[in-house]
Amino acid sequence: MAAIRLVSVVGAGAASPRQYEQARQVGQLLAKHGLGVVCGGLGGVMEAACRGASEAGGLAVAILPGTDRHTANRYATVVIPSGLGQARNALVVSAGEGVIAIAGGPGTLSEIGFALKAGKPIVALDSWDIPGLAEAESPQEAVDCLIDRLGPA
Amino acid sequence: MAAIRLVSVVGAGAASPRQYEQARQVGQLLAKHGLGVVCGGLGGVMEAACRGASEAGGLAVAILPGTDRHTANRYATVVIPSGLGQARNALVVSAGEGVIAIAGGPGTLSEIGFALKAGKPIVALDSWDIPGLAEAESPQEAVDCLIDRLGPA
Amino acid sequence: MAAIRLVSVVGAGAASPRQYEQARQVGQLLAKHGLGVVCGGLGGVMEAACRGASEAGGLAVAILPGTDRHTANRYATVVIPSGLGQARNALVVSAGEGVIAIAGGPGTLSEIGFALKAGKPIVALDSWDIPGLAEAESPQEAVDCLIDRLGPA
Amino acid sequence: MAAIRLVSVVGAGAASPRQYEQARQVGQLLAKHGLGVVCGGLGGVMEAACRGASEAGGLAVAILPGTDRHTANRYATVVIPSGLGQARNALVVSAGEGVIAIAGGPGTLSEIGFALKAGKPIVALDSWDIPGLAEAESPQEAVDCLIDRLGPA
Repeated sequence: MAAIRLVSVVGAGAASPRQYEQARQVGQLLAKHGLGVVCGGLGGVMEAACRGASEAGGLAVAILPGTDRHTANRYATVVIPSGLGQARNALVVSAGEGVIAIAGGPGTLSEIGFALKAGKPIVALDSWDIPGLAEAESPQEAVDCLIDRLGPA
Repeated sequence: MAAIRLVSVVGAGAASPRQYEQARQVGQLLAKHGLGVVCGGLGGVMEAACRGASEAGGLAVAILPGTDRHTANRYATVVIPSGLGQARNALVVSAGEGVIAIAGGPGTLSEIGFALKAGKPIVALDSWDIPGLAEAESPQEAVDCLIDRLGPA
Repeated sequence: MAAIRLVSVVGAGAASPRQYEQARQVGQLLAKHGLGVVCGGLGGVMEAACRGASEAGGLAVAILPGTDRHTANRYATVVIPSGLGQARNALVVSAGEGVIAIAGGPGTLSEIGFALKAGKPIVALDSWDIPGLAEAESPQEAVDCLIDRLGPA
Repeated sequence: MAAIRLVSVVGAGAASPRQYEQARQVGQLLAKHGLGVVCGGLGGVMEAACRGASEAGGLAVAILPGTDRHTANRYATVVIPSGLGQARNALVVSAGEGVIAIAGGPGTLSEIGFALKAGKPIVALDSWDIPGLAEAESPQEAVDCLIDRLGPA
């Protein structure tokens, strides 16, 4: 049995209802394609992506900045309290084969930078306007676009 | 649904047949108790613990030193390529609620140090003789002893 | 004797002659103000900033991605081989009280993200056009602008 | 001008008067040999080593677990707030060419593990009794012994 392939879902810890719903659908769609979600494990977009993934029976990996696993959102199915502070953003990106960015603030910007540096595919949904990101109009389009760009297992 | 609780299994990348078998049984027993394994993801004790866990239908999380997920052993079910080098040992320990150390070299010593510092329960199977570790004679005793010392979920 | 205050100078490992000269002047000017440079320790903008700082008798701290101190540029005066890979970008930013970004690619973008997240002052010289960065037209203006925004020691 | 060569001085944040004095002398002696000290930046052995180094006109690099540079001891001359938590122990070791361990608790044990793993020379002064460490009876002997084992610059 091969390891579950992971996609990083990045975005801010505070999400509008629309962003929350988008992230939840992204998590659900990834799970339906047999892909797990890895994220920063806190609220907002991170919570919504974990929620969608776990609601669809998928894997939701939370890599937390602190050392207390109880700070993870309640939809995460695997919790990694890193203790690395903001440097855990590098880990969230290195753990996934590609990135879907949903809205997001400066932490998300750092993650986009790492993904570009590593040459990983990145799809943006209403996120930073940075050259090199594919833009999607909907969760469905974002997931389809990312899967299209993932390399072979 | 709550997140799967994780136990760190630490030991060297080269294992004797006896150590390999002990680590495999530890992984199996943890899985039978509904606990996942988290480890450094490479060979030897790490591979054996992942193998036991996944053979018993459990979770086997591999936190790799490098960025290439294909360097994980083939029994890992969730692979986190950290890119952090040896510093990933800190992460292997912070990801688990307790530690089972099987034999092991200097990398294992660093993990024992981190676990002692964090006040996590540690059970040693034929490993370093350091004050503060509980010693077990068998995989069964190691897992029972560790579960006994884990705090509440 | 108080510790030397540090400013992060970030930018790509490949620099045009103009960018190299700008970074060198930034290093020199920081040193003349009694501020040390901290950077990623490799070539291009990083080398030039270290060169300027050390030529002016200042401190040039190189935080390398790998574990081999000999990969640092030859102008660094203190070399920290981190072994953390790209995650060392988080460290380059956390080590400084403010950031001067000179040109730069995706690694620099990750550093800008971390600095914004931490609320540190950032001055951009011909770098990413991101809201929240002060733009400067010259090394002199960049250093003056940053010093103006630094908090008290 | 070449970078200053660094030696990691590791030990607990709480030190007896005797341990404090030993660490201070180690810092002084390293400085007199033109070597800088790198340590975890807090109190006890770390403070004493920084104190000795800076009193002798040497370099004292403090790599802190948190992000607040004001938590460094007051003798550090270069402060790197890492934000990496306990994982900064890996960094303290990777930053030095060799290690002097003075007494110390579990954090020190993790550092000894990393140094052994990396094949760096380690000298112990009243510290952990681990195979592979050279034992010294005095600060003078510890520094002489370490310098003897350092590779070429």
